[in-house]
Amino acid sequence: MARQPGVAYSITIRARYANDVGMLGHITSAIGDAGGTIGAIDIVTSDRTTMVRDITVNARDLEHSESLVESVTAIEGVNIVNVSDQVFLRHLGGKIEVNSKTEVKTRNDMSIVYTPGVARVSLAIHENPESVWNLTTKGNTVAIVTDGSAVLGLGDIGPAAALPVMEGKALLFKDMAGVDAWPICLDTNDPDEIVRVTKYLSVGFGGINLEDISAPRCFEIEEALQRELDIPVFHDDQHGTAVVILAALHNALEVIGKDIANLKIVINGVGAAGVATAKLLVTAGAGDIVGLDRTGILGLHRDYGNNGSKRWFAESTNVDGLQGGLDEAVVGADVFIGLSAPGVLTVDHLESMRPDRIVFALANPDPEIWPEDAAGHARVVATGRSDYPNQVNNALCFPGLFRGVLDVRATGINDEMKLAAATAIADSVPRDQLNEEYVIPGIFDRSVVAKVAEEVAAAAIRTGVARRSRSSGDKETT
Amino acid sequence: MARQPGVAYSITIRARYANDVGMLGHITSAIGDAGGTIGAIDIVTSDRTTMVRDITVNARDLEHSESLVESVTAIEGVNIVNVSDQVFLRHLGGKIEVNSKTEVKTRNDMSIVYTPGVARVSLAIHENPESVWNLTTKGNTVAIVTDGSAVLGLGDIGPAAALPVMEGKALLFKDMAGVDAWPICLDTNDPDEIVRVTKYLSVGFGGINLEDISAPRCFEIEEALQRELDIPVFHDDQHGTAVVILAALHNALEVIGKDIANLKIVINGVGAAGVATAKLLVTAGAGDIVGLDRTGILGLHRDYGNNGSKRWFAESTNVDGLQGGLDEAVVGADVFIGLSAPGVLTVDHLESMRPDRIVFALANPDPEIWPEDAAGHARVVATGRSDYPNQVNNALCFPGLFRGVLDVRATGINDEMKLAAATAIADSVPRDQLNEEYVIPGIFDRSVVAKVAEEVAAAAIRTGVARRSRSSGDKETT
Repeated sequence: MARQPGVAYSITIRARYANDVGMLGHITSAIGDAGGTIGAIDIVTSDRTTMVRDITVNARDLEHSESLVESVTAIEGVNIVNVSDQVFLRHLGGKIEVNSKTEVKTRNDMSIVYTPGVARVSLAIHENPESVWNLTTKGNTVAIVTDGSAVLGLGDIGPAAALPVMEGKALLFKDMAGVDAWPICLDTNDPDEIVRVTKYLSVGFGGINLEDISAPRCFEIEEALQRELDIPVFHDDQHGTAVVILAALHNALEVIGKDIANLKIVINGVGAAGVATAKLLVTAGAGDIVGLDRTGILGLHRDYGNNGSKRWFAESTNVDGLQGGLDEAVVGADVFIGLSAPGVLTVDHLESMRPDRIVFALANPDPEIWPEDAAGHARVVATGRSDYPNQVNNALCFPGLFRGVLDVRATGINDEMKLAAATAIADSVPRDQLNEEYVIPGIFDRSVVAKVAEEVAAAAIRTGVARRSRSSGDKETT
Repeated sequence: MARQPGVAYSITIRARYANDVGMLGHITSAIGDAGGTIGAIDIVTSDRTTMVRDITVNARDLEHSESLVESVTAIEGVNIVNVSDQVFLRHLGGKIEVNSKTEVKTRNDMSIVYTPGVARVSLAIHENPESVWNLTTKGNTVAIVTDGSAVLGLGDIGPAAALPVMEGKALLFKDMAGVDAWPICLDTNDPDEIVRVTKYLSVGFGGINLEDISAPRCFEIEEALQRELDIPVFHDDQHGTAVVILAALHNALEVIGKDIANLKIVINGVGAAGVATAKLLVTAGAGDIVGLDRTGILGLHRDYGNNGSKRWFAESTNVDGLQGGLDEAVVGADVFIGLSAPGVLTVDHLESMRPDRIVFALANPDPEIWPEDAAGHARVVATGRSDYPNQVNNALCFPGLFRGVLDVRATGINDEMKLAAATAIADSVPRDQLNEEYVIPGIFDRSVVAKVAEEVAAAAIRTGVARRSRSSGDKETT
């Protein structure tokens, strides 16, 4: 299955040609014949003899975008002035900035927000440490901490190359939930060092969003930080994914009328997201889970050395003691959750499952099975892609979840809060609109953030990890 | 000398009283008699019988503000509804925020600034590490790193209490120079740990501003980071102060017609700022410097244990081998630079100096000698205060300096760049306006930032520490 052209590979071709009737048609035909999707067409300059136009075209991938340029170059009488790349243009100079929330126009302003006035605020915090929540940005601020070891589907590309992703995340934090998030990209892969650094710098933040740290290091890093810090620590690749999957499963089960306790669920891929998903599903009442890594089914028949999360899998799932690979695992399953690799799931696999199959094919960018191929062989199909129905996207969880924990100044994030987030996301799909192709709300549905924040905050209060009620506001000065 | 009332201790008294002629006069008289300076007077509610007003009053200090409230409370028929503190109100919720530089309104936007589009940007950085300067915020971003061990004049109040100061600094960075700065408050005082953490997180920043770290730890921390990082590292308490002092001295010498090479300069206080100032003055050609710590004059007659910076002082200054205290040090001196404690300099000290004395009394908030007391006994007096002429304020240096180094992507900050910054600051005072009370430009003179940035960038290029020319702009995408 070939990908469809998209803005992720969007180029703008500036072409100069004789201002003759039919020339633009030649160009657009050439692009269309080469499989490009034309967006905006603008005139740059135009006179009696010469026309210069900007033609924005979506391609499938980098190679395709190059072939589109070639197809235009090949047209007699057309000169290409330049080709610009929309994605790179939008990234020039970075995507986030730091702004002042207060004006500093006069000496008086300066005396209040900086020296000498600020000294009294510092002293107040020194005398009453809790007042840091009111008198600084801490209360609305999240550190996005990464070592760049598991960035998107790109693997260990390092902390500098991870920065654009973290900036994108910070941007979504602000845009969707009003949270001030700053990227902290660390030039070390040592779990102890990452824990140590994050501890030291946690002073200035109300929460820690661990991001794109590879398994199994991510587990020990998160556990150590949760143990040592009094602010929420949340590895989004684990729990964000788990929460959205649980929300989607909840609604899918409602559509097809099955109960989570009676399901057989196969989880293919037991990295950060797979392990967290299994644990959350167990907490949510899932009875029978079977996990697989590259070697095959996880069970007590195998040895896992130091890998505690895989040992947890072996001890806590696979009640029937299955052995083998994916062919064996999927037989009689109700749900397939793929967090693995493109194309590993076949129609034959689907046909060996129980009827009313649920397939979450979440490998990115290419899923374990394309929705077109699964059509007719599964009732509900979800992917990680925005160009198909039912997109499992962490952006449904993390903005609202952090909004909620910051609102009540939570000391941590527990299972009840994750379950509350999943329920809030599931409930965001109106019951009368729920159907096979709409089990997950859209990421631009702003009501999701508010609902998740509210439910997470309520769960934090209920379970005793909130420092204050949500409505208490910011009125106290000390 | 009592301090003058100022906005740093500004309160708003909300008073309710019978709406009778003369009542407001009673209130303002009471405040005036108690030494308060009245600012705005606003009506909150008013009817035939009752008046409620907000009266904003500047006090000298906290005790004074309390006595002002008491003086109003004592007036027959006046009820105080509440008292609010302007400084604390301006700090509620913090002073800085993170904003998106690009709109995310549609799925297309999301595909460009986040997944899947961002993956190509990350890969580009992975393949060409230098492109991180163009494709992320790194190129315009500074980390303000502190451990809260020497905050303003407050001492070791810790990293949380330091946060309001760091936010204030971040705010000035943006407001004055367009630099995106983020506070990193570290919960450790261990120099090795601070170096380690800063190294790890430097990936995402174009410069490191060390701030409010106590001496002598600040020296080893800065040196280690300068050695190990390929971005500028600048401890503002040291070099920012030194640069502005040199600028002020330069202009003061022009006013009185002396040459830096022929001066005897006394530096009282050899903490972070004192040591850096002495070193920069030596670089600028100062001949005879005498330094003092709490024990007295620094010279070869004393032992300094592990304190390398004091040993440098003993070995590099005090050419005449003076011993003793301040009384002995100031005899025959041309310049007194105080970075020490309130009131330690007397008129007798001044009278023992050579004529045309220059006095920089920079202890904060109360100087070594008040300008009124020095009047007639010194030609040029500077302080750290905004309410007297000639304010030595680091904000004259750090915004323009970091603007300059970021513009050329400098790998470090050398002496030539500091000297260039000092010259740029000095030159910002128009030659025809230069006089005893105007040797330092005002901090709201925006031309200073531009001039410092330009000269620092030029010095970086001249000395080979610039990655690019200043005019190259941000057009390259990789």
